[in-house]
Amino acid sequence: MTLSTETSTAKSTDSLTSAAPAEPRGKDSSTRPKYTLLAPVDGASLAEALDGPFHAIKQRWRDEVQAEEILRDPGMGMDEARQWAFEAMRNLSEKSFITAGFPSSVGGTGSHAESVANFEMMAMGDLSLTIKSGVQHGLFGGAITNLGTDWHHERFLPGAISCELPGCFAMTELGHGSDVSSIETTITWLPESGEFEVHSPTPGATKAYIGNAAQHGRMAAVFGQLWVDGSCEGVHTILVPIRDEAGEPLPGVTPGDHGHKGGLLGVDNGTIRFDHVRVPREMLLNRYGGVDENGVYTSPIKNQNARFFTMLGTLVRGRICVGGGAASATRRSLSIATRYALRRTQFRKPGLGEEITLLDYLTHQRKLLPNVARAYGYGFAMNEAAQALQQVMEANASGQHDDRSSRALETRAAALKAAQTRWANDTIQVCREACGGAGYMSANQMTLSRQDADIFATFEGDNTVLNQLVAKGLLLDYKRNWGEMDMRGTAQATAKMVGSAVLERTVARTVLERITATATRLSEPDLVASRGWHLEMFEERERHTVEGLARRMRNAAKLPKEEQYEAISLVGEHMLFAARAHTERITLEAFINGIEQTKDANSAALLNKVCDLFALSSIEQDKGWFLEHNRLSPARAKLVSGGVDILCGELRPHALSLVEGLGVPEAWLRADLLEMVDPDVDEQ
Amino acid sequence: MTLSTETSTAKSTDSLTSAAPAEPRGKDSSTRPKYTLLAPVDGASLAEALDGPFHAIKQRWRDEVQAEEILRDPGMGMDEARQWAFEAMRNLSEKSFITAGFPSSVGGTGSHAESVANFEMMAMGDLSLTIKSGVQHGLFGGAITNLGTDWHHERFLPGAISCELPGCFAMTELGHGSDVSSIETTITWLPESGEFEVHSPTPGATKAYIGNAAQHGRMAAVFGQLWVDGSCEGVHTILVPIRDEAGEPLPGVTPGDHGHKGGLLGVDNGTIRFDHVRVPREMLLNRYGGVDENGVYTSPIKNQNARFFTMLGTLVRGRICVGGGAASATRRSLSIATRYALRRTQFRKPGLGEEITLLDYLTHQRKLLPNVARAYGYGFAMNEAAQALQQVMEANASGQHDDRSSRALETRAAALKAAQTRWANDTIQVCREACGGAGYMSANQMTLSRQDADIFATFEGDNTVLNQLVAKGLLLDYKRNWGEMDMRGTAQATAKMVGSAVLERTVARTVLERITATATRLSEPDLVASRGWHLEMFEERERHTVEGLARRMRNAAKLPKEEQYEAISLVGEHMLFAARAHTERITLEAFINGIEQTKDANSAALLNKVCDLFALSSIEQDKGWFLEHNRLSPARAKLVSGGVDILCGELRPHALSLVEGLGVPEAWLRADLLEMVDPDVDEQ
Repeated sequence: MTLSTETSTAKSTDSLTSAAPAEPRGKDSSTRPKYTLLAPVDGASLAEALDGPFHAIKQRWRDEVQAEEILRDPGMGMDEARQWAFEAMRNLSEKSFITAGFPSSVGGTGSHAESVANFEMMAMGDLSLTIKSGVQHGLFGGAITNLGTDWHHERFLPGAISCELPGCFAMTELGHGSDVSSIETTITWLPESGEFEVHSPTPGATKAYIGNAAQHGRMAAVFGQLWVDGSCEGVHTILVPIRDEAGEPLPGVTPGDHGHKGGLLGVDNGTIRFDHVRVPREMLLNRYGGVDENGVYTSPIKNQNARFFTMLGTLVRGRICVGGGAASATRRSLSIATRYALRRTQFRKPGLGEEITLLDYLTHQRKLLPNVARAYGYGFAMNEAAQALQQVMEANASGQHDDRSSRALETRAAALKAAQTRWANDTIQVCREACGGAGYMSANQMTLSRQDADIFATFEGDNTVLNQLVAKGLLLDYKRNWGEMDMRGTAQATAKMVGSAVLERTVARTVLERITATATRLSEPDLVASRGWHLEMFEERERHTVEGLARRMRNAAKLPKEEQYEAISLVGEHMLFAARAHTERITLEAFINGIEQTKDANSAALLNKVCDLFALSSIEQDKGWFLEHNRLSPARAKLVSGGVDILCGELRPHALSLVEGLGVPEAWLRADLLEMVDPDVDEQ
Repeated sequence: MTLSTETSTAKSTDSLTSAAPAEPRGKDSSTRPKYTLLAPVDGASLAEALDGPFHAIKQRWRDEVQAEEILRDPGMGMDEARQWAFEAMRNLSEKSFITAGFPSSVGGTGSHAESVANFEMMAMGDLSLTIKSGVQHGLFGGAITNLGTDWHHERFLPGAISCELPGCFAMTELGHGSDVSSIETTITWLPESGEFEVHSPTPGATKAYIGNAAQHGRMAAVFGQLWVDGSCEGVHTILVPIRDEAGEPLPGVTPGDHGHKGGLLGVDNGTIRFDHVRVPREMLLNRYGGVDENGVYTSPIKNQNARFFTMLGTLVRGRICVGGGAASATRRSLSIATRYALRRTQFRKPGLGEEITLLDYLTHQRKLLPNVARAYGYGFAMNEAAQALQQVMEANASGQHDDRSSRALETRAAALKAAQTRWANDTIQVCREACGGAGYMSANQMTLSRQDADIFATFEGDNTVLNQLVAKGLLLDYKRNWGEMDMRGTAQATAKMVGSAVLERTVARTVLERITATATRLSEPDLVASRGWHLEMFEERERHTVEGLARRMRNAAKLPKEEQYEAISLVGEHMLFAARAHTERITLEAFINGIEQTKDANSAALLNKVCDLFALSSIEQDKGWFLEHNRLSPARAKLVSGGVDILCGELRPHALSLVEGLGVPEAWLRADLLEMVDPDVDEQ
């Protein structure tokens, strides 16, 4: 990269220095900001930067997959949509677009990280197709890959990959969703016949919301409590055939159909109930525990709790994918809404008669551009998460399992999943509304995305539960770093260490030093525009929140047992905020890393401004917290809001390149509204 | 009302006094709040209080309308849904449930205010049905009623009411939505034949998103520029037959079908293009302007601009209804999600083994209960708006038109429409997610509501545009009250007048005096719990924002003409905030009035606590603003958040009554999930 970070930071600083505060005081008559001119950048260069290490694999999708292969007619009814999704999945599988993440011995054609990149691309098309494949290849295929051994791989993975063996991932039950350890399905060892018996002992034990269960599934990876010789070995997974070749349910298996849903009509979610179904001993996915020919239970992990979390841990890829998929759908809507806003006129300039485009309004810029900025941030964070996943999976495969990296990855997956899926729901809706009535027409491609993405907020882990998991991870790190020190002592110690080792950083130390060194030399308004200050604010938000949380948890622990529950319940919101603060910080750091790795200087300069907008709009969003905790003075808070306004104006001329850079192929947008408005108006 | 406001305020004060701040400082070991016990209240009493003056009319719906008549199967495809909505509408019309708001001479059976109440009830069932009737009775029938004269009433209203004459309201065009004055359709007087010619001169002039246009409509109330003798008299409305008895388009009329939409599948939205279509002179709705037998244009309102706004002003009912309808759908989702949360268990209490319901979690309470509180606030505000509508319409009918009341009503309608529809989109989604995967199943009734309510945010006025309209209304009031005074002088003057005549109040002076008198006697933490302080905070938020806005507009006006546009564009966000601040205040005042009028003492006491939650959660939401403007100290901000936590806990035992009080008949909920979970668990 030829243009250093300082240079581009300095640029954005210039612009903010001349900023009018959001609400100018006194007689200041010049409230118009001066816009900084940045060199125009080609959308393709930005896409290359954002794709990062996955550019080649993502570009293959753009070059080779036609819109017809990946877009569903939004008017399709449920039956039609289910059939379309199945066939579209088989087609992409045949062309090896979605065959990464499996052992190459059975037809796998790429790394785990690449399977995430594929998922992200698919989700720029249709989410039913994406989730259908997510169930088939990610969950069903992933369970066999990660929880099974060679015997299972050889027999079942080729069919899982090619879709000749459509499969289910039967974990959730009617009675228990988020609390997997309490599921009631039983897998009982029958020593007399050398088989397992799979059974749903209560109505609440019925498997529920299972993709592929209502129609296409032939086999299910069933989670249940393993009973051997009268003792429960905890949750294990077993492969159970559920339908014959003709699609008829097998004896003892009762599938149900959830029918019409709020979206994802192409995925045939259903229930499965088992009535004393017998399967051979070998069908148990026995990588982390199985019963040998002598009927003896053995496991490489002795502790039942540790075993449970190791097994669940192998499923982390699905969580990473779901977050990225939601972000892809959002990129698509942002691409449509921004292009529309560049063409659509509404009122005329008062007194001038000239019609202005929607994107000329600051209120409209503020709806879209900070979200475009955030899309870049999450994109870079996803690249890092996919690479981290690859490292953990490789370490596991080579027997180098590292508990700390695994848990860090789980925290990151949970954080990014919760953040991106929440953002997707909110932002696709913003895009729809930004297109007015036109946005509501299914032909304009946003309402289908919105409906399909909806469930992402609660499947693969409910977002509230996931954020609590993140907060617990942060507390654990905190405890590890600070041990059982007295709390007053801790507070004093940390006060001295702001910006040092309290948080685990992902940005290289040399980069950080360069950034913070710049920040300390700056005057007040320049500071608000500087990356060093942004980082400091993001870190403070996380550090202070986690510290406070640790203190409250410690106080709660001192209470009588029966009062602890109540006290811990009261910190719920605090936990959610800590998780969010953490996710914001790792996203900013990923953004910084992404810019560092951008080779094209003009792209890097523009991305740096986009990062400014991400950072300032994040601080603005939490203005209340920063003010409440004296991390922001009222005057600075106004500079922050003014800075967001100015950055929106500065990025306005680059809007088309910026959405092109989000990497959704133009042919895949296929929104009628991009054809019908003002065809004689240029897009800039 | 036997229990005075003071008594119940005092109650909530007690509870907050003992509040732990959201994040306790130092060694405070007792972080558990003490819950105040309120007498249990019957849901029916709360519903009666919330229905207010419309209790009888609303109760008739609950008693007489069966679920089958008002609920649509969410799995219906578009064609089926369209047919169902038409027939359901005709059925309710035959039973006189939706015939209010028309002259009794032609079959009307109630006041304008009652038509709003009917709309709200219908929207507790199905929104496609509601909007279908809104188009037919509210818009098409309303245009004839309000813009037409006896000739039109006698000929067309009976068919409009009975649905024998399905009609369209053809205002919006492809090229122009929010900017009605720029529509391009022409209505040209042809002196030679004594007819009008209706024409779409450009593709952009095509009428778009018109309900009833794609399939059922036989006639349209068409908005266009009236041309007489070569001069344009501005926008007028004319009735144009568009289809014959067999449903075939009439010559010169080209209807189109928007096809599948993001929701409201039961409404057949389409386009209409006119190619020199001739209609008799009498078809022009001529209450505010027409052409006489001699071909001379006459109007009771000489000024073209004033005439335009008077004509648009008569359509205010639709805007009031849409806001209320969105709120009704939200009440339905809140009723379902809260009942589910009272039954559904997730994890067990750590260490105790006892499973706890979702609503026992503070994080879950915080998702639902502040929204339940807000539902009450909006409900009381809707009652006031409906009554204000009635007064304005009666004044108009008796020739007592008051410009100021009309404009105040328009501001209020825009404010409540924007606020309630935004809230509906967000809150129905919260409810869906609060039910996890079950919430996503169409049988559980929330995703359909969400999809149908979506468009409410942008139809009948885009929310951003409406909020700007509200802000302009507030600026106008401000200017009227403060004239052209020097700004410094104004600032000083207003500083002395906090809480006095700057804002137009709707709460009776005696009530206000009682409330503020109580507030001034209170110590710091008691203050945060007191209604007087709430009111003061709500007023400050609005007053300061409007004042700042006035100053910025005045500064912008001093700039050279070509720079003004840019400067005004920069105040966009400020305008939106002012509108929101205003809406929050009038909602709080309506809540206070509603409690004043509640006869049952226990209901009033409970509603008072619900109002506390509404007020504190509103302040909490805008914490950033209050802190930034020194209206809240960090310590008080924490008391506010702690107060929300405590109030959630206090209202938890009343949750079922509170959602029953929202007035959605239990039989209309019809959500599968209320049957399937833990039938042995009591609801409390």
